Amino acid sequence: MDAPTALPPVDPAVIAELKSVLGPDEWSEDAFEIAPHLTEWRGRWTGDTPILLTPRTVEAVAAVVRICAAHGVAITPQGGNTGLVGGQIPYGEVLLSTKKLRRVREVTPLDDAMTLEAGVTLLEAQQAAEAAGRRFPLSLAAEGTATIGGNISTNAGGTQVLRYGMMRDLVLGIEAVLPNGEVFHGLKRLRKDNTGYDLKQLFIGAEGTLGIVTAATLKLFPRVRSRAVAMVGVDGPAASIELLARAKVETAGAVEAFELMKRLGMTWVLKHIPDTREPLESTPPWYVLIELADGAEGGAEAAMERLLESAFEDGLISDAAVAQNDAQRAEFWRLREEHSAALKPEGGGWKHDVSVPISRIPDFIEEADAAVQAFHPGARISVFGHIGDGNLHYDVLPSETEDRADFIGRWKEGSAVVHGVVGRYDGSISAEHGLGRLKTDEARDHKSPEQIALMAAVRRAMDPQRIMNPRVLF
Amino acid sequence: MDAPTALPPVDPAVIAELKSVLGPDEWSEDAFEIAPHLTEWRGRWTGDTPILLTPRTVEAVAAVVRICAAHGVAITPQGGNTGLVGGQIPYGEVLLSTKKLRRVREVTPLDDAMTLEAGVTLLEAQQAAEAAGRRFPLSLAAEGTATIGGNISTNAGGTQVLRYGMMRDLVLGIEAVLPNGEVFHGLKRLRKDNTGYDLKQLFIGAEGTLGIVTAATLKLFPRVRSRAVAMVGVDGPAASIELLARAKVETAGAVEAFELMKRLGMTWVLKHIPDTREPLESTPPWYVLIELADGAEGGAEAAMERLLESAFEDGLISDAAVAQNDAQRAEFWRLREEHSAALKPEGGGWKHDVSVPISRIPDFIEEADAAVQAFHPGARISVFGHIGDGNLHYDVLPSETEDRADFIGRWKEGSAVVHGVVGRYDGSISAEHGLGRLKTDEARDHKSPEQIALMAAVRRAMDPQRIMNPRVLF
Repeated sequence: MDAPTALPPVDPAVIAELKSVLGPDEWSEDAFEIAPHLTEWRGRWTGDTPILLTPRTVEAVAAVVRICAAHGVAITPQGGNTGLVGGQIPYGEVLLSTKKLRRVREVTPLDDAMTLEAGVTLLEAQQAAEAAGRRFPLSLAAEGTATIGGNISTNAGGTQVLRYGMMRDLVLGIEAVLPNGEVFHGLKRLRKDNTGYDLKQLFIGAEGTLGIVTAATLKLFPRVRSRAVAMVGVDGPAASIELLARAKVETAGAVEAFELMKRLGMTWVLKHIPDTREPLESTPPWYVLIELADGAEGGAEAAMERLLESAFEDGLISDAAVAQNDAQRAEFWRLREEHSAALKPEGGGWKHDVSVPISRIPDFIEEADAAVQAFHPGARISVFGHIGDGNLHYDVLPSETEDRADFIGRWKEGSAVVHGVVGRYDGSISAEHGLGRLKTDEARDHKSPEQIALMAAVRRAMDPQRIMNPRVLF
Repeated sequence: MDAPTALPPVDPAVIAELKSVLGPDEWSEDAFEIAPHLTEWRGRWTGDTPILLTPRTVEAVAAVVRICAAHGVAITPQGGNTGLVGGQIPYGEVLLSTKKLRRVREVTPLDDAMTLEAGVTLLEAQQAAEAAGRRFPLSLAAEGTATIGGNISTNAGGTQVLRYGMMRDLVLGIEAVLPNGEVFHGLKRLRKDNTGYDLKQLFIGAEGTLGIVTAATLKLFPRVRSRAVAMVGVDGPAASIELLARAKVETAGAVEAFELMKRLGMTWVLKHIPDTREPLESTPPWYVLIELADGAEGGAEAAMERLLESAFEDGLISDAAVAQNDAQRAEFWRLREEHSAALKPEGGGWKHDVSVPISRIPDFIEEADAAVQAFHPGARISVFGHIGDGNLHYDVLPSETEDRADFIGRWKEGSAVVHGVVGRYDGSISAEHGLGRLKTDEARDHKSPEQIALMAAVRRAMDPQRIMNPRVLF
């Protein structure tokens, strides 16, 4: 990635003022301590900052933001630094990490609600729910490091969106520090509250541009009593979305995950990832991983049996294996989850996190494949993703004999080809990862002028100085 | 209600310009034709308008708003005119009804989505879903008249919020005309789209102050295959929320409705509503109506049996009757739905649509009852509502011998007593009905200054002239 122009240095007097309102362990100028916060985990961005702030309380966050607002100093907020589009990396901005906002404030199972501070990790949030006999269903690969604040600011998705929705759907209330340093107190644990605009929505998915989320009240769900996971073979995307519709209707809400994988990506997983093996006896052109969950003992297994039986009868699937135990369930899921990792030994490529209406997935894949082959003949294309949400990870790799560096260097043009098809299918160029630094500019070509103007107007109203994550969004 | 001060008359030249961009059947100055649009159905508000506009297309809506924006003329948008807080009644504003935006634009079952224009009624929306083999689960008493545009603008709730959420949770995309007359094109049918602020959220629950919703893409759900409805007796609100928690956990998501009713309200229903009868053999102090639904044949019935058995064993319920057929199901539901109608013959009273955290319902009811009795000894209190959402309809009536007009005249002070307790329990003074004219002023005492300032800032950013429903919200 090109490094953006750095900001003018922050006045040392402001730095001194920031330190003066924080405890000695709430800031650092130590390059060694700061370094892990300046680099995105895949190494695509490396930024710089005059100071890392790690306030422990919402009051400390507010004090810091008030000082920055008074002096017009820009801030980049950061959660667990697991974002994939570079929105969390400062280039001269003050870096404010929420990692020390660590308290689980309250879990009330009768309300199916819990209130956590922004720096609690997603895994810890799941564990807090579990300890109260409930479930917090957001789940994604980085959950051990990703934080609730970051999950909210990026409206995180993951593998269970089909049943439980994105992070937006799981938030009951938010506490945030506004760009002027005031605290927005919105930690209601109400399910219904029609008393004016639902302001908390503004902070969700805003990538830190409208304030800093310091705490949130999240929805909890009942634990499930049975789970069934199957890997099935289908002859193409069209059959897979028919199977999806049938699964949703026949199980009335029990589908937790529905993941499509193309044979090519599966062969890379089997080749490069240790301890993996063919899940089916046949080698179908496409695979679907289905997970069902139910409140009754044995309910998921019975529903899976009914579903697969009817799908076989109608020729929707060619082969199927139902996991017989936890180890086999994990094995099937690993085949899906290692898809990204398996790209690296193949040399990497142009990656895309896109969504289109579910019904248009088959045509989209066909048209995108044709467009990519026309632009770069011989490209190898891996497609996998959460098709229950219309979300595809569409990855394009060079042929095995090509120069990889040269290919990677053409990612902007290549991505424009894929995203052009996404636009024609009324889709999104960032289904779950956000825009950040990576896609903000490109998104201008995909959003309508009145949408961009409206976003900018809302932002100006809340942050007239544009001090909150100024390089990100519109 | 006090009638608010009327606006200065609209310049006849502007009226002429408005007519000039509309067809002859898209406007009316006929008092007889306009009248039903000026009165709220219970007769609490009666307004006036220089002209009723009923555009048939989004372009016509945009043309009208552009003219009003150019001349600083205020507009009151109106859907089905079923709102309960007077937000849809003009007092000198131009009245723009969306009732002729009637098209079902597209239903795509594979996407579990449908796109409808704002004037389609909620009942028609349910029917369109049904015709495609799907279900649109929003359901409320006024569904034959209430429109999708109004449901969105008021973030409508109803009886199935517990499982499917409020209208906000059911909207995938929105088309709206902005206060400057531009069209906001946001009719995506995507489940995931993280490309900047989720602007559609702004229009949901905004009560027509940020633009006019002209169409929406809504989520569809699988139809259910089995349903079970039971009426049970419990000894109080504390037992009812324990039963709720158990029902949610034991059936893992199958609870569609969970409605609490106090004996007093039930006696009024039995007394005043024809063809009703005691649902249980005993006469418990509180009733709960439970509805379960499941994707498998017989699943709901089996789950209900398990739930009631375990609840009996642990002494959570004292009596239960499971509906044996559709007629009995309807009979049970009628006992709940006629609660409002049964108040009228008793003389009416101070009505409240409030929510508190579910876990605090028992204490809230106790404290509210005590506060009301201290303020007005001998008051009769009826409590019923969607306690699965923490939403109570809390109604206070005078004793049988008191002067009713005198009592009704004291509603402001009486409601302040109830809402004061709501505030202490961190609740909402309008759970599902919105603020409108009825509660906007009072809400200033219940929202924090920074929340009101933020709402006003967002509104100014989108509607600097404040021409959209200017009397409503902040």
